[in-house]
Order: sequence, then C-alpha cells, then structure tokens
Amino acid sequence: MKNILVIGAGRSATSLIDYLLNYIRNHEVRLTVADASLNLAKSKIKAESEKVKAIELDIFNNEALSEAVSQANIVVSMVPASFHAVVAKQCIQHECHMVSASYQSPEIMGMHQQAKEKGITILKECGLDPGIDHMTAMEVIDHIKDSGGEITSFKSFTGGLIAPESDNNPWHYKFTWNPRNVVLAGQGIARYLENGQFKYVPYHQLFSRTQPITVEGFGAFEGYANRDSLGYRDIYSLQEIPTLIRGTLRKPPYCSAWQHLVSLGMTDDTYQMDDIKNWSWRDYTNAFLPYDAEHSVEDKVIRILGIQAEGEDFYLLKWLGLFSDDKIGLAAGSPAQVLQHLLEQKWSLEEGDKDMVVMQHIFDYKHQGTQKRISSSLVSLGDDSLRTAMAKTVGWPLAIATRLLLEGKITQRGVCLPVSKHFYQPILEELRTMGIAFTEKEETL
Amino acid sequence: MKNILVIGAGRSATSLIDYLLNYIRNHEVRLTVADASLNLAKSKIKAESEKVKAIELDIFNNEALSEAVSQANIVVSMVPASFHAVVAKQCIQHECHMVSASYQSPEIMGMHQQAKEKGITILKECGLDPGIDHMTAMEVIDHIKDSGGEITSFKSFTGGLIAPESDNNPWHYKFTWNPRNVVLAGQGIARYLENGQFKYVPYHQLFSRTQPITVEGFGAFEGYANRDSLGYRDIYSLQEIPTLIRGTLRKPPYCSAWQHLVSLGMTDDTYQMDDIKNWSWRDYTNAFLPYDAEHSVEDKVIRILGIQAEGEDFYLLKWLGLFSDDKIGLAAGSPAQVLQHLLEQKWSLEEGDKDMVVMQHIFDYKHQGTQKRISSSLVSLGDDSLRTAMAKTVGWPLAIATRLLLEGKITQRGVCLPVSKHFYQPILEELRTMGIAFTEKEETL
Repeated sequence: MKNILVIGAGRSATSLIDYLLNYIRNHEVRLTVADASLNLAKSKIKAESEKVKAIELDIFNNEALSEAVSQANIVVSMVPASFHAVVAKQCIQHECHMVSASYQSPEIMGMHQQAKEKGITILKECGLDPGIDHMTAMEVIDHIKDSGGEITSFKSFTGGLIAPESDNNPWHYKFTWNPRNVVLAGQGIARYLENGQFKYVPYHQLFSRTQPITVEGFGAFEGYANRDSLGYRDIYSLQEIPTLIRGTLRKPPYCSAWQHLVSLGMTDDTYQMDDIKNWSWRDYTNAFLPYDAEHSVEDKVIRILGIQAEGEDFYLLKWLGLFSDDKIGLAAGSPAQVLQHLLEQKWSLEEGDKDMVVMQHIFDYKHQGTQKRISSSLVSLGDDSLRTAMAKTVGWPLAIATRLLLEGKITQRGVCLPVSKHFYQPILEELRTMGIAFTEKEETL
Repeated sequence: MKNILVIGAGRSATSLIDYLLNYIRNHEVRLTVADASLNLAKSKIKAESEKVKAIELDIFNNEALSEAVSQANIVVSMVPASFHAVVAKQCIQHECHMVSASYQSPEIMGMHQQAKEKGITILKECGLDPGIDHMTAMEVIDHIKDSGGEITSFKSFTGGLIAPESDNNPWHYKFTWNPRNVVLAGQGIARYLENGQFKYVPYHQLFSRTQPITVEGFGAFEGYANRDSLGYRDIYSLQEIPTLIRGTLRKPPYCSAWQHLVSLGMTDDTYQMDDIKNWSWRDYTNAFLPYDAEHSVEDKVIRILGIQAEGEDFYLLKWLGLFSDDKIGLAAGSPAQVLQHLLEQKWSLEEGDKDMVVMQHIFDYKHQGTQKRISSSLVSLGDDSLRTAMAKTVGWPLAIATRLLLEGKITQRGVCLPVSKHFYQPILEELRTMGIAFTEKEETL
C-alpha cells in the first residue's frame, strides 16, 4: 500500500487534506498528516483509521523527519519556505517524490540531477501563485504559439482578497493570509519590461504606480508590480517578449492609502523603535513626522503627504486608528511590527467572512497580421473560514499533482515546475471540474 | 629613538604627514609611512632620510603588518574602516599605541581591557567628524555643566563642501571626499530626539526634511539628519537631553534636488540594472519612469516629482545631463553606481579648486532661570588640492594626538574617544594656533 505524508497542517493544508482523505477512501493508499502540533494535525484528519493517521513531527529533528519520510512514497511539503530544502534532502535520501507550493530555490535547483538519478520528482511552485498562475499562463501561451501567434505582451495579476459579501471596511481588505507578508509586500525593487523598456520601481513609489484592472462581475481592481517579472521570460520561454509584468491585485483605494503608510516609514522592518511601551497610536504616527508644536498630528500628516483633510485617503488612515489615544500595547517592535499589530485588530476576518482569490492574465499577440488580446480571469470564493478560496486554490493543485504522481501519470523526474503540458493539462482539467475555472475573453485590437 | 608608523598615505594623510615631518625635524623621533603603493608613500614624505622612510605594506599580509608594527611606538591607522581592528590587534600584540579617525566598532571596544593591561592607548574617532565634533562639543558641554547650566538641546551639523571661490555649479557641490559615500549618504533610517519626541525619518524622505542653518559670513546652509543621533546621549553624557540631532550640511538647493534622485530610485545600490551597455543617460532616467509613449522623459519626471519645468530643481536635474542622449559608457552597474559615474564627470574638482569644511553646534541651555543659546561654528578652507580643508581637519587632530601620546602627555589607556578634557584641551588648543578655531556666539533667548 502506498503512503502519502503531508508535513504541515496549517491553514493552507485544509482543502489539500480534504481532497486526499476523499481520494484514499477508494484507493489502496495511506495518508499521514504531520505537524508540530499533534492537535492541529488531528483536527484536519477528523478521525484516525487504519489508512489515516496524525503524527507529531518537529522538522528541526532530522532523525524524526527522516523516519517519517522513509515510510512515504510521496511527501507534500507545507513547511515554511526556508525548510523545503531540508525536506527535499530527505526525499532524495529515501527515494520519495515531493510536491510543494513554495518558490524554487537555488538550493533545491541544485538537487535536480540527484533527484533524476534516483527517479523521483520534486515538483515546486504548484499552488496558486506560484502554481495555477504558471499552469493557466502556459496553457494560453502554448495555445497561441501552436496556432502561429507571436506574444507581444503578458501581464498577470493575482490577489488574495475578501469576498464582496464580507467586504465591509473602507480599505476593502482583510487578512486572508499571512499578515506579516502583507505588511512587508513589495519591499525591494520591482522590475519589469514594458514595450521593450526595462522599468524599475523603488518600493517607496510602488503603491502609487498601479494599473487599473477590471474583472467582469467583480468590478475595478488595481495592480502593483511584483519584485522581478524579468525572470519569467525564461520560465515561460518568452525570451523576446517586449512587455512582461506580474503583480498583485487590490481593490481601490487600498494602494493609494497604503502608499501613505510606506511614505511615512511605517512599513520599515529594519530597525526597532525606541521606548514605545507607553505610546499611543497617535505617538506612533507622530514619530514619523517633524516636530511642530503648532500643528496637530493630523495636520502634519495632511501636509507631509499632500492629501486632503476631507479626502478618502485621510479617512482610511483615520479609520485605522492612527490618530487614536489608545495605547499600542507592545513593549517593542519595528515600525512594521507595530503597524501589523494595529492592522490585525482592524483587518481580521469576522465569523462567517469569506475570502476571494482573483487572478487575471492579459496576453497581447499578433496572429496572421492582426493584433489580438486574450484576457483570462479567475475568481474563486471561499466556502467558509476553513475551506477558504486560498486553501482551495493552493491545496487542490498540490493534491491533484500528488494523486497523478502516485498513479504514475506524471513521469517527468528531477526538480520541476508545472509549466509543461504534461503537468498543467491533467491538473487544470480536474480543477475545472472542481469549480476553479478561468473565463477567457478574446478580442481583436 | 621613538618610531611613528603611518599606515595609509591617501588623500586624507597629507596634512597629517606634513605635521609629523615637521615635528620629527626637531625631535628624536623617526617616521615611517607605509602604503600599498610605495610611490604614493614616497610622494608624501618628499625625501627619505635617516629619520624618514617610505615602505610598501600590504595590510592583508599579516606577517608584514606585524613586522612593521613591531618596530613602532605608535601607529596612525589611515586604512579603510573595516581594517582598523586588524591593525589594533597588532598594536596590542606589540604594545604600541594607535590613533585613528574612524568610528569605534564593537570589535575594537572589545579590546579595551587588553589594551589597558598592556598599558597602551587606542584612540578612535579623532579626525574631523568624528573627532573635532566630539572635542568642540564636549568643550562647550563641560563648560555649560561646570557653570551650573542644564543643556536642553544640542544640534550639530558638519559638511565637506566646496569653497565659495571655487563654487561654480548650480548644485553648489563638488566631490571633495569619497564619491561613493556621497551617493549612498543617508541610507537606512535617521533617528533623533526633538523636544522629548523620538523622530524617525525614512531615507526616501530624508532630503526633504532639512533644517536651515546660517553660518556668519558664509550664508545659508541646510542640514539633514544623520543615521543615529541617539547614541550620542551616552557618548556626551547627555542621557536626559530632550533634543539631540546630528546631521550633514549642504548648500541649498542641493538637498531639494537630491531628494528627486532618491525619489526616482537612482541612489539604489541593492541591485544591478539590466543591459545598460548601449543606454544613453536619457534611457537611464526613463528606466525609473512609467512607460508612456505620449510624453517625453522630461514631462514624466516633472509629473512624477511634482516639480515645475521652469523651476530650479528641474534645472539642476537637466544640468547633470540626465536627459542627454550621450551614452552612459558602463557595461553594468547598480543605479547608484551609474549615477556616481555621471556625478564624477559633473562634480569633480578642477585645477585650483579649494574645498571647505563647515561645522556648527547649537546648544540651548537653562542657566539661572534664563534660556540661553551658544552657537559655535567652524569654517576651514583648503590651501590647495593636497592641503585640503578635509585633509587638515582630519589629519591635524590625529597628528597632535600622536605627538601628545609620544611625549607622554596623554596618559589615559585602553580604547578611548577624545571626549574628556584630558584629550580635547591640548588638541583644541594647538588646533587654534593652526587656524582651526570655532567662532562662538552666545545669546539669551
């Protein structure tokens, strides 16, 4: 009997585990869910049985990890990004496949030859973003190329957002994912290509350089560029493409207001603030403003940012409580850590809230002398607070890839991304039956 | 006969070596000037003699360094900042004093006890800034405290600038010091205290948050905050002071125009740009701007920065050649490296140009119920392209400290900064005879 080992039973593993539980019911396959918290692992499998068990596993304990992996035929690694290489090493050692949603790393790339020789597949970037983005993009890219088209522009934006029915705050945003990643999003340089020109957007300008995006039935969004779009020329075999931008989606006016937090320096995570123990939120805001005994904190914010007292941006800042006399309630922290502490109080999901994943690809291409555009959009809504859109869109592609590997339907070996037809065709086909389907619109420009 | 060893014969060592050459003429002391370039070392001592020699020394060669230090009674270390600890270790080993103009480091701090036990002095931060700033500040601070005053505010600004007679460009700036440091100046967070409030200025706002400074006879300057002013509470024993700001001086409108280069992202040194080999300066500027086929690079700069086409700031950007069709002429580089390459063509010293060092301390204090202010200013002008104001103000304090140590007039042992009367009194006294004198103004507020 074959064995699947899932390492990590957190938020994003719920739909993955559901799929696998359902799968093994009718197949001669066992499932083990391992987590640092045995209770969490247990909660995800509901009931232990001959075929299903939950175990406690400390991934820092190499012996225990080795023991767990040695009994598996395939490992689904849901551990934090920096630990995937540790898991991958064990998978190679025990000749066991591995799938994961996290980004490719040079360390894991270096295991390609070894994995190939051992006849195992290490599939990376097979969740939502990265994952579904690769697969759906490559499906369209291959289709255009096969029909003799020449792609001149590819723009792709993804956002993890709040569903319209649960959207009841003026930022139109709640944390449906790791808050720290949201607060630090975009730090570093964003680089992309537009009409043959290399473009570099410094972090302190990023949220004021957005592009409007419309998704039918869901209205207006805005996209800001993600770190390095240029690397995707190689991943997607689009080496000569003049326009290539990947980015993140938000609902307006999020970006415009977030830009102000960046401008003030509130998202800086490089230093610890001094002596914040007895500070109010007003003190926190004031620490980023010049000393001026004659003007209020509000007036200084308005002047420094060049915004209007009656405007929407200022309203969003006020709504967060940045001018409140309430105590911060932290002993120490970087500006970003303190801001996160505030946002977690304002942007947390309420009972019954549903999330929403939105992805849109826009391809421009020349075909037999005419300029055409394909817009391909996905909107996925969460079912409930566990079966979120995020958990489904991250977990299901992984689960399907796991099944395909187990059944011998994926035969590519070594370290892979799901960018070839071999991967994306069966995975996308099954995702469509589960309601993860892109709407495609083709037009002549 | 005692021996002085100077390691490093670069730009800032000229006046130092001149002073020591003059000193040994009438004293039983020998001087050795060591540098990686024997020719450079030779050029600084003019002629070898029984008492003076130049040697080639590779500071990466520990054996050679040890050999050189073993013959010295005192070492003046003018090596790059990161190598001072290597030199200090040799000085402890060979029981030899050491003086240097560079910043204290935790590594050297850790040698305090050992140095003390060996009976040697390792004097750090004894140049201009740090150096003269410490000594002149402490002289006033001790004076105010001794007379029963309570210091409520200390602001101190220093600038290495171009002398008025050589100031013939609209930036009112030329490179009189390491260009790379000028381009990267201010990166990281600036933190200071004002009226009891902690203030944090993110780099991308730093050059728009300047303070006006006036130096009598030399007109208007502006100061921007340096990295961590708060550490000076301990160094100057001003633990309870409500206002403490240290910063850098420029001539207007330098900061306002430099802020635009920062805003565009041109001072970023964290990544390499793509494919700049055939770019013009116009292409470089355009890389930081959104794609827009309908507007010129100039129009886009004006719009993004919110400046006027007829304004001074835009004129300064144009004057640099940022819109020129000339080729950059570099194969690769970070934005900051490319910008430095341009600035080195525009801001280089011409034949006969003289530099200028400006320093101003402003102390507010309460004395017998009245609020008073002491403003203490230094302006030092270069003599020529070798005896620059920078070389004199960095080199002379070091040279004087060297003499005092050699003559047994400095008796404090271990790792020291020149902040006690023991150091600053004799050094400042001699500096005044050499024309490095502060003008003090006292007023009742």
